[in-house]
Amino acid sequence: MEETASQFEEHIIVVGVGLIGGSIAAAVRDRFPKTRVTGVGRDASRLKQAQAAGLLTDFAVELTAEHLQGPAIVVVCLPVDLIADFVIRTAAIASDCVLFTDAGSVKAAICDQIDSDQVASRLFVGSHPIAGGEQSGHEHADALLFQGRVCVVVPVDPRAGDRSRFQRACRFWEGIGCSVREMEAEDHDRVLGLTSHLPHIMAAVATSVVGDANLSLTGSGFRDTTRIAAGNAVLWRSILTGNRAHVVNAIGEAQAVLDEFKLALARDDDDQLEQLLRSAAECRVRLSQSDSDAILSTL
Amino acid sequence: MEETASQFEEHIIVVGVGLIGGSIAAAVRDRFPKTRVTGVGRDASRLKQAQAAGLLTDFAVELTAEHLQGPAIVVVCLPVDLIADFVIRTAAIASDCVLFTDAGSVKAAICDQIDSDQVASRLFVGSHPIAGGEQSGHEHADALLFQGRVCVVVPVDPRAGDRSRFQRACRFWEGIGCSVREMEAEDHDRVLGLTSHLPHIMAAVATSVVGDANLSLTGSGFRDTTRIAAGNAVLWRSILTGNRAHVVNAIGEAQAVLDEFKLALARDDDDQLEQLLRSAAECRVRLSQSDSDAILSTL
Repeated sequence: MEETASQFEEHIIVVGVGLIGGSIAAAVRDRFPKTRVTGVGRDASRLKQAQAAGLLTDFAVELTAEHLQGPAIVVVCLPVDLIADFVIRTAAIASDCVLFTDAGSVKAAICDQIDSDQVASRLFVGSHPIAGGEQSGHEHADALLFQGRVCVVVPVDPRAGDRSRFQRACRFWEGIGCSVREMEAEDHDRVLGLTSHLPHIMAAVATSVVGDANLSLTGSGFRDTTRIAAGNAVLWRSILTGNRAHVVNAIGEAQAVLDEFKLALARDDDDQLEQLLRSAAECRVRLSQSDSDAILSTL
Repeated sequence: MEETASQFEEHIIVVGVGLIGGSIAAAVRDRFPKTRVTGVGRDASRLKQAQAAGLLTDFAVELTAEHLQGPAIVVVCLPVDLIADFVIRTAAIASDCVLFTDAGSVKAAICDQIDSDQVASRLFVGSHPIAGGEQSGHEHADALLFQGRVCVVVPVDPRAGDRSRFQRACRFWEGIGCSVREMEAEDHDRVLGLTSHLPHIMAAVATSVVGDANLSLTGSGFRDTTRIAAGNAVLWRSILTGNRAHVVNAIGEAQAVLDEFKLALARDDDDQLEQLLRSAAECRVRLSQSDSDAILSTL
C-alpha cells in the first residue's frame, strides 16, 4: 500500500470524463486526496461540473506540453476509435516520464496502431478495466466502480521498453481497486468478443425480433436480457468494428449453439435440450455464486 | 370495483404455491381479506409455512370433490406439462359452478388437450399473467407482482360455452391488478416464443459460449444478459417443448438477424452495422420509456 500510495504522488490526467473516466477520477480522489487529478474534455462547462462534484482538481479543454512535463499518468477514456490517434498526437509533446494508458474495450487495434509510432510506443501500456454501467456521464461516476473488478493490462513488447512501464500501469489500476490480469491484446479481444461484444449483439437481436408491436407482452426476463441493447449505437459500432474478426467468430459460435437448440427441439430430443439448458444454468449459477463470494469478502 | 369485489366472494383455490401461485394468493388476500384462499400442493409443511405467512386461509395436499362443490376459481400454477392433466382429472369431480384457469406460459398445447375433454373443456379458460421473477418459492411471493402487468386470456370457443366464463376469468385477473389482453392460444404462443422463450435461449447461448474459464472477464452487461439462463432446466424444458414449433421459428428469426450482423461486419458495411444497433437501441429505449410512464402512472 505504501508503494501504491507513493505512485499517486504522480499527476493523474483523465481524458474523457464520462462514466468510466469520472469513476477513475473519483476513485483516485477518494483514495489519494492529495493527488492532482486533471480532467480533459471538449466541454468546459461539463468539466467544471465534474470539478464542482469533487471529481477533479482542475481541468482543460486541451492537453498541452505544460501538462506533460513532470511525471504523470494519462488515462485515455475516449471511444475506442479515437484512443490511438489521441495517444500518438499527445505523446509527441510529452516528456519521457509520462505514462499513457487507456480504458478501451478492444486492445489489438489500439496497441498495434500505437506500436507503429516510435514515440508513442515507448510511453503506452494498453489496459481495459472490466467495469461499467448502463448510464453515461460523470454524474453517475462511482469511486467504487472498479473495486474487485478485473483490469486487463497488455504486457509491453520487450523491444519497446522495459517492464517497469507495465508495472507502473498495474500499480495504477490496483491503486483504484482493480485486480490486474496480464493478457496479450489478441487474447483479450478474443475473450471479450465472447464475454462483452457478443452479449451486446445477442441483446440487440432479441430486441429486434420482438419489435414495438409486441413490447407489451414482454416480462422481466426480456428486460434483463435486452437491457444493454439500449446502449449508444455509435460507440458500439466503434467497439464491434475495432474487434471485427473476433466478433464475427463469436457470432458464429453463438449460431452453432443456437443450431444445437433448434435441432434438439426439431428432432424431439428433449433430453439433449435439457442438457443444453442445464449446462448453461450451472455455469450461470457459478457466476452468481462467485459474485456473492466477492461481495462477502468485502464485508 | 364493486363488481370485482363481489367476484371474490368466490372461493379461490391456488394449485402450486410457488412464486406465481403464492403471489396470486397474496394479491387476493391483500385486496379481498374476507375471501377464502386455499393452497394445494404436495408438501404440507411448505403449505403450512405459506399459511403462516398469511398467503392462505387453508391448504390441502389433495383437491377433493368437497372443495369443488360451491362457486370456486381454481388457478393452476403448475409446470406447463402438468396443467392439462390436472385440470382434466379434477374437472371430473367438480360442480358446474367451478372455473378452472391457469398461469402457464404456453397456451395452445394446454388448451388443445383440455378442449379434447368434454367435461374439462366446459370449465376451463386458459390464461397467462406475464409476470415473474428470478426467484422461486412462496417466500418471494409479492402481492403487487401482477400490478399493471398484462394477463393474456384465451377466448372461449363458442361451441364450448358462453362468454360469461371468459368474462369471469378476466374479472379475476383484473381483480388482482392485471390488464387483460384477449388473444388466441396460437397467437400467444407465437409472440411469447419471441418475447420470453427465445430470450431464455439467447441467455443460455451467451453463457455457454463463454464457459467457466472466462467468467472472470465478464462485466455487468454479461450479467444482465445471461441472468435468466440460471433458471430451472426441467421447467424450461417443459416450456420450450410445449411451444416447440414457435420456438424453432423464433430461433430461426434470431439466426437471420445474427447473420445480418455477421455480414455487415465481414463486409465492412459499418453503416449497416450502426443501423442494426440503432434500431434495436431505439426499440429498447421505448420499452424503458413505457416502463417509466407506467411507474409514474401509479404514483
